[in-house]
Amino acid sequence: MKLLVCPSGFKGSIEPHTAADCIERGIIRVDPDATIRKVPLADGGEGFASALTMATNGKMRYLSVIGPVGAPIPSYYGILGGCGPKTAAIEIAAAAGLSLVPDHSRNPCVTTSFGVGQLIAAALDEGVQRIVIGCGDSGTNDGGSGMLEALGARLTDKTGKVLARASGGQSLTLLAHIDFSGLDIRLKDVHIEVACNWQNVLCGPNGVARVYGPQKGATPEQTERLAGALDNYARVAHETLGIDISDAPGTGASGGLGAGFILMGAELRPRYEAIMEYFNLDDLFDDCDLIFTAEGGIDFQTPRGKIPAEVAMRAKKKGLPVIVLAGTIGADADVNYEVGINAYASILQKPMTLEDAMKEAERLLMESAECAMRMVVVGRKLASQAAAHDASNSFVGRK
Amino acid sequence: MKLLVCPSGFKGSIEPHTAADCIERGIIRVDPDATIRKVPLADGGEGFASALTMATNGKMRYLSVIGPVGAPIPSYYGILGGCGPKTAAIEIAAAAGLSLVPDHSRNPCVTTSFGVGQLIAAALDEGVQRIVIGCGDSGTNDGGSGMLEALGARLTDKTGKVLARASGGQSLTLLAHIDFSGLDIRLKDVHIEVACNWQNVLCGPNGVARVYGPQKGATPEQTERLAGALDNYARVAHETLGIDISDAPGTGASGGLGAGFILMGAELRPRYEAIMEYFNLDDLFDDCDLIFTAEGGIDFQTPRGKIPAEVAMRAKKKGLPVIVLAGTIGADADVNYEVGINAYASILQKPMTLEDAMKEAERLLMESAECAMRMVVVGRKLASQAAAHDASNSFVGRK
Repeated sequence: MKLLVCPSGFKGSIEPHTAADCIERGIIRVDPDATIRKVPLADGGEGFASALTMATNGKMRYLSVIGPVGAPIPSYYGILGGCGPKTAAIEIAAAAGLSLVPDHSRNPCVTTSFGVGQLIAAALDEGVQRIVIGCGDSGTNDGGSGMLEALGARLTDKTGKVLARASGGQSLTLLAHIDFSGLDIRLKDVHIEVACNWQNVLCGPNGVARVYGPQKGATPEQTERLAGALDNYARVAHETLGIDISDAPGTGASGGLGAGFILMGAELRPRYEAIMEYFNLDDLFDDCDLIFTAEGGIDFQTPRGKIPAEVAMRAKKKGLPVIVLAGTIGADADVNYEVGINAYASILQKPMTLEDAMKEAERLLMESAECAMRMVVVGRKLASQAAAHDASNSFVGRK
Repeated sequence: MKLLVCPSGFKGSIEPHTAADCIERGIIRVDPDATIRKVPLADGGEGFASALTMATNGKMRYLSVIGPVGAPIPSYYGILGGCGPKTAAIEIAAAAGLSLVPDHSRNPCVTTSFGVGQLIAAALDEGVQRIVIGCGDSGTNDGGSGMLEALGARLTDKTGKVLARASGGQSLTLLAHIDFSGLDIRLKDVHIEVACNWQNVLCGPNGVARVYGPQKGATPEQTERLAGALDNYARVAHETLGIDISDAPGTGASGGLGAGFILMGAELRPRYEAIMEYFNLDDLFDDCDLIFTAEGGIDFQTPRGKIPAEVAMRAKKKGLPVIVLAGTIGADADVNYEVGINAYASILQKPMTLEDAMKEAERLLMESAECAMRMVVVGRKLASQAAAHDASNSFVGRK
C-alpha cells in the first residue's frame, strides 16, 4: 500500500515533521511493507519555513534579527531543495510572531515587522531568485512598515523626520511621505510570493486593526488608534506611490504585512492555494492509495481553512481516502465527512489532562496511527475474503 | 456486511445491552445496510442474568431477598427464552454482590449468601429444570453456608444450636455438623450449572479468604479468622457429608459459594467455557464477517479472562476479525493483538476527566463505533479499487 503522511503539527507539543515520523512508525507496525511518503505540512504560520524546506530536502539558515519588541532574537529561513530557481522560504512568524512578544509587552501599537525585512535581505544576500513567504501568527500591526524600513524605504513625518521604529504601527499616524528611492535594488529581480489569508483587508470596519488588534492585546482605544494609523498609511501610500492598499484581498494579512508586501511589488496569493502548490501535494496524490493527516484539533471550524480539510478537499477530487488523527475531536466534527475526510480519531487513550496528553503526545499519535491502520487492514481483508468467496461461488456455479 | 456486536458493559456507566445499542447506531451511520446481530455479554458477575435473558429473548423476574448485610433488597433472576428445558439464569451478585454492601459495612466476616438460596428457591417454585448461575462480584465470604441455609440445610455448632446467620462466614468457626435432611427436595431433579472462576479454591495459602478477603474489606486479623472458619467448614463437610470441598477447582469462587454449590450437587464449570456456550457465540460466529466488542478497559490483563479476549480467542479460530472499543487503553494493551484482537480504540475524544467521560459514555461509544467502521470501510474500498485495478490491468494485458 502507498501512503501519503502529511500532518500538521500539534501546537505546543508536536512539530509537523515529528508528527509525520510518529504516524509512519504506527503504520509500519501494521504493514512493514507499506510505501510511505512523509510531507509534514504547515499553514503560513509557525513551522512554515522548516516544513517546506524539509519537504524539498532544502537547508535551513539561522541568523539574528530585530524581533517584534525591538530586541535581537534568533531567527531562521530556509533555502528550498530541488531544481528550479533558487528559492527562500520565510515565515513572518519567525521575526514578527505573536509568540515572540512576551505577555507583558502585548501592545500591537508598538511592535515592528522590521525583522521580516532583515530575513528578506539575508535571502537576497545569498542570491535567491524567488522568495515564498508564509503570513500567519503575527504579533505586529504595523502594515509592514518596519519591514519596508529594513529594506531601505524611508518613512517620514511632515517635517521630513524618519518615523521612530520603536513606535511601531501607531507611528503611521504621523506618516506624511514614503520614499522608495533607497529600497533594496535587488528586490526588482526577485519574485516574491506571499501565502496569506485572502479575507483580511487593511482598512475599514473589517480592517485588520479592528478584527485582530484585540487578539494581539490592543485595548479598544489602542485598536482605534491603530485603525486610524493604517488609514493614514493607505492614504499616504496612494498619494506617494500611487498604490491602493486599503482593501485589496490580503492587504490586512498579518497585521497589514500584506499591504507592505504589495508596496514592494510582491504577489499575494490565497494561503492554501499557494501552500498546497509549494508542497506539491497534487503530484504526490497521483502515486498514493491512502492519506493520513493530523492536527491538534478537529471540529466544525476545520472545513474553514484548516490543513486536514484543505488536504481532504483536494484528495476527494482524486477519490483518495483521508484519515485524520487529532488530539481533540470538538463540537460537530462530523461536518468534516462532507469535505472529504473519511474517518477521524482522537489520539487519546483514557481520561487524562491536556498537560499529560501533551507530554505523551508522540506515543499516543503513533499508537493511534497503528490503531487506524489496523482497522483499515481489517476492512481490506474483509473485502478480499468476500472477493474470494464470490469467486469460489461463481466457480461452483459454473460447474 | 454481517456484524456481531457483543460488548460487555462499561462498569458504572453503560450496561451491556446499552453498549450494544450504541455500537449498532454507530455502525448504521456508516453502513445502513449492515446486518447487525446484538448479543450483549457479561461475565459471571453483575449483568449476567439480564444479559443472558435478553440474549435468549427470555423474561426477568423481580423479587425481594435478604441481602448480604442481612436486610431485604430488591433482586432478580431471569427465565431464558427459546426451546429446551425451562432454565433460570441467576447471578449471585444480585443477592450477595459487593456493590450491595455499603462501604461502612464492608466486613466479609459477617456478610451472608442467604439471598442466593432464595433466588434458587424462587426458580424452583416456578418449576425450572435447569439453573445456570454466574459467580462473580461477590461481597460475601461464607462458603455458601447462607445459601444452603436458605435452601433448608441446618448448620449447627457442637451444642446442636443453629449458627447465627447474621454472623456470616466467621460463624463457621463454630460449625460442628451439617444436616441436609431438610434440604429442598426439588434440587435433586434440577440441573444446576455454575460458571465460576476455576482458579479459586476454598482453603490453603491460596484460599479465597486470603486472596479476596482484603478486597472485600477484611483486616489481616479478619482474613485469618475467615480462613480458619472455612478450613473448619471443609473439615466438617468432609466428615458429615463425605465431600471434599477444600481445594477442588472453583470451590473458592465468590467467597466460597463454589464450595456450597458442590455440596448441593451443582456442577461447577470454568466461567467462559460455560458463558460462551450459554450465549451461543460459536454458532453466531458462523454467520458473521466482523465482530465488535467492548469493555470499560483493555490492557495487559485482558487476555487473562476478560470478555474481549475470550471473544477474540474463539473468533480467531474461525478467522473472524475482532475490533474492541474501550473507555481506557491501559498498559501494554498490545499483547491483545496476540489473542485475536485485530484492533482496539478508546472512545475518548479529548482530554477530560473520568467523571465527564462516564457522563458522555453513550455518545462517545456510538461515535467511536462509527469511526472504527469508517476506517474499516476505507480498507474495504482500497481493496476493491486494487482488485478493479488488477482486473483492468490483466484486461489490458490480454489485449
